[in-house]
This record gives sequence, C-alpha cells and structure tokens, in this order.
Amino acid sequence: MTSTLILLRHGESEWNAKNLFTGWVDVDLNEKGAAEAKRGGELLLENGLLPDVVHTSLLRRAIRTAQISLDVADRLWIETKRSWRLNERHYGALQGKDKAATLAEFGEEQFMIWRRSYDTPPPPIDDADEYANVDDPRYAVLPTEARPRTECLKDVLERFLPYWYDQIVPDLRARKVTLIAAHGNSLRALVKHLDGLSDEAVVGLNIPTGIPLVYELDDDLKSSQGGRYLDPEAAAASIEAVKNQGKK
Amino acid sequence: MTSTLILLRHGESEWNAKNLFTGWVDVDLNEKGAAEAKRGGELLLENGLLPDVVHTSLLRRAIRTAQISLDVADRLWIETKRSWRLNERHYGALQGKDKAATLAEFGEEQFMIWRRSYDTPPPPIDDADEYANVDDPRYAVLPTEARPRTECLKDVLERFLPYWYDQIVPDLRARKVTLIAAHGNSLRALVKHLDGLSDEAVVGLNIPTGIPLVYELDDDLKSSQGGRYLDPEAAAASIEAVKNQGKK
Repeated sequence: MTSTLILLRHGESEWNAKNLFTGWVDVDLNEKGAAEAKRGGELLLENGLLPDVVHTSLLRRAIRTAQISLDVADRLWIETKRSWRLNERHYGALQGKDKAATLAEFGEEQFMIWRRSYDTPPPPIDDADEYANVDDPRYAVLPTEARPRTECLKDVLERFLPYWYDQIVPDLRARKVTLIAAHGNSLRALVKHLDGLSDEAVVGLNIPTGIPLVYELDDDLKSSQGGRYLDPEAAAASIEAVKNQGKK
Repeated sequence: MTSTLILLRHGESEWNAKNLFTGWVDVDLNEKGAAEAKRGGELLLENGLLPDVVHTSLLRRAIRTAQISLDVADRLWIETKRSWRLNERHYGALQGKDKAATLAEFGEEQFMIWRRSYDTPPPPIDDADEYANVDDPRYAVLPTEARPRTECLKDVLERFLPYWYDQIVPDLRARKVTLIAAHGNSLRALVKHLDGLSDEAVVGLNIPTGIPLVYELDDDLKSSQGGRYLDPEAAAASIEAVKNQGKK
C-alpha cells in the first residue's frame, strides 16, 4: 500500500518578476502566480488527487498558493499545518538585492556558488538589515540561535527533515493524501531526500512552479519511481526554460 | 490575567442575498461579504488585536472570512484549526428553500418557531435531498448517526461545546489570542454560553456580520463584562436593522 504526497511550488511573486533575491522576505504572489496556483488546483481536481491535509511554510506566497489551489479543488476545509521549516532558503545578505546587480558586482563564479552550491551559504544577513526578520512575529517563538541568518541548500534540508519526520510522515502513514505548498529550495531539498540525489546531482534539479509533483510512497516512505508531474509537458518546458536562462 | 477571544461572523453570502435558508449548504461569500471580511481584518489591525490561532467551521464562507481578514492583518501564517462543530446550524428540510415562500406556505408562527425557537428544530432533511450532505467528503469521517439532519440552537450548543472545551479553551489557557470565524447561530450558541443567557434571552440575540466581537476571559473562561464590538456604532446599527426586518 502506498501513500500519496503532492508537492506544489508557489507561482511567480512580485519579486520574482523584479528579479530580486527573496528568501524569507514575505512577498505576495503577483497575478501570474495566482493564475499558476489556480491551474495547480485544476490539475489536482482533474486527476482526482484531493488532499486530506496541507502543510505550508509561513510565507504568504506559499499560503496563498495553497488557498487558491484548494479553493479550486473544493478542499478549503482540510486540515492545515504550517511551519517555518518549510520556508524558502534564507538568502542571507542577498535578500532584497537585484540578481543582475549582484552578478555584476561579485562575478559569475561567486554568484553561481551562492545560487547553486549545496553547502556554501551567502554572507549572513545583519540584524540591522531592513530584510532581517528580527521583529517578525512569525519567528518570535524561536530563540535567537535557532533563527537562520543565511542558508545553503544543505542547511535547508537539515531544518526541513525534523518537520518531515515529525509532522508529515505521520500524515502519510495515516494514508492521508498530503499536500505540501512551499518553495523552490525547500522542495528541492525534499526531492533530494526522496529521490536519493547526491549533493552534486541536486545542483541541476529545478522544480517548475504551479505544477503538482506527485509521489506514491511505499511503507518506508520511499518511492521507487520518483515523482510525476500532473502536466509533464508544461513541466518539461519550464525546466528547459530555466536551463536556458542559466546560459545567458 | 485574561485571555483574548475574538468572534467573527462571516459576511453576506450568495444565498443571504437571495433570501434562501443556507445552513450546511456550502455557499460562498459574495462581494459584499468579502468586503465585510476585509473590514473585519482592518478592525483587528487598527486595534492591535492580532490572532495567534484561528478556528473555523468547514464551510467556505467562514474559511474565506478568516483568510481575508487575516490577510489584511498580516496573520495568514498563524495556526489554523477547523471543525464541523463550528458550522452554521443545520436547517434540515428548509435548506435551499426561499424564506419568503416558506413563510407564506407555513405561516408566521411556524416560521418563527423554526427560525428562532431555542429547542424546536425544523423537519429533518431527507438523504435524497439535493442539499443533504450524504456524500460530502467534509463529513465522511463522521458515522451516520453523528451527522446532523436538522438542528435547533440547543443542538448547536451541544455539539459546539465539546470543541470549545477540547480545542479552544486550551489555546485560551495558553494565552493565545484566539479568533473564531464562524456563523450566526454557532456564534449565538457560544455567546449564550459565555454571557450566561437564558434560553429565552438568546432568542433576541443577533450578532452582526464582519465586526469582531472581543471577549477578555478570566481564568475560569468567564467574562464579567461581556463582549465588545470593535465598531460599536456599526454593530448597534446592524442589530437595529435586523430587529426592524422582523417587523415587516
């Protein structure tokens, strides 16, 4: 018997469109992102994949993606859990910075290390930075030392896994169809875990926005076949577009 | 030390505007209802009453009211719990019926008993009725005998209180600012309990839509002063309007 897990990356946000590093800055979806979330919900409905429980990050672009897609699928009423452990990667001192300007300032090698290295984080954000989350009530429950000030993908996986084992796995074991609405890097970290990707292989992994990625997990919470996108053509096209973006 | 409880009744729905009995039928807010929810969120924000946890019914008009008001107050990320025990009163065989036509068919005395009597429910809904919830996945977890087929206000209070004691009271004891987004009759039942209203007195109680009603509860979860509306003038005007409606 298998358990069904659905991953949904939020669609375009106001800062994606402006080409700024976002991380933990709480930017909303733009209209395109809201439309992507709606399409995600339609794909769930068309495929009869109706979540029993949803897990989101604490960031509004993921929460709104869940709300919009679940509204379309008439599942607004399901159990809802949230955690900072599903948040996007904390981008440290780069948060709020223009990506092109950062590339110009620091050069391509450094830029790509910060964007894609598995275990090298950007410089930490200063508490005085306007995009630090010092007084953010979302994180008030966390003691100072537990709040990320920058993260590499390895850090994201390490803070994601406790929530995976303690909160998501029990839902899957109870055979609940489980939706995770989260972010590019928190979902890349999870897919690395589920697919057993090496530190090197995950560097090339891109997850398209707004297209549900479905796993059927066995009793040891593994998947022999990997995930499948509910719109494989659109997913392939999106992954190809991101690859070409990197070739500019 | 007190605990803060905020009650928020959803705004106008598509069926309120059409003058149909709604009950457990899952009708959405209309534009006016969405605007009322937004105003509710603004009142929370202006008064610095920021919820730490929200409880909603399983009906979308209450869920959307919570989402819209919490969005305005920048509290989308808070803990979220839902239960059928917060649902509107089940209106039995009257669900989906036109109120004016029902009044004409059964006469004012019977009509008012069904609408306002504390302990006389309308006739039960038939399982074959298009507005019965027989196959509704929201209630699939409930054994047949536990699913309401009609309710009077007394029934609502009886099914509400277990959730109050088991799920809401612990949040209040943990000093979480607690928001309940629900319905005219589930909130009337709770206010009867909190204010110690008699079965007779609750008949005359009306709770305006979209205006947060705030209780400061003592250690025994009682309030010596009763609730206060965050917009007392609008609340008084709304209560007056409902009274005059009855005088047609």
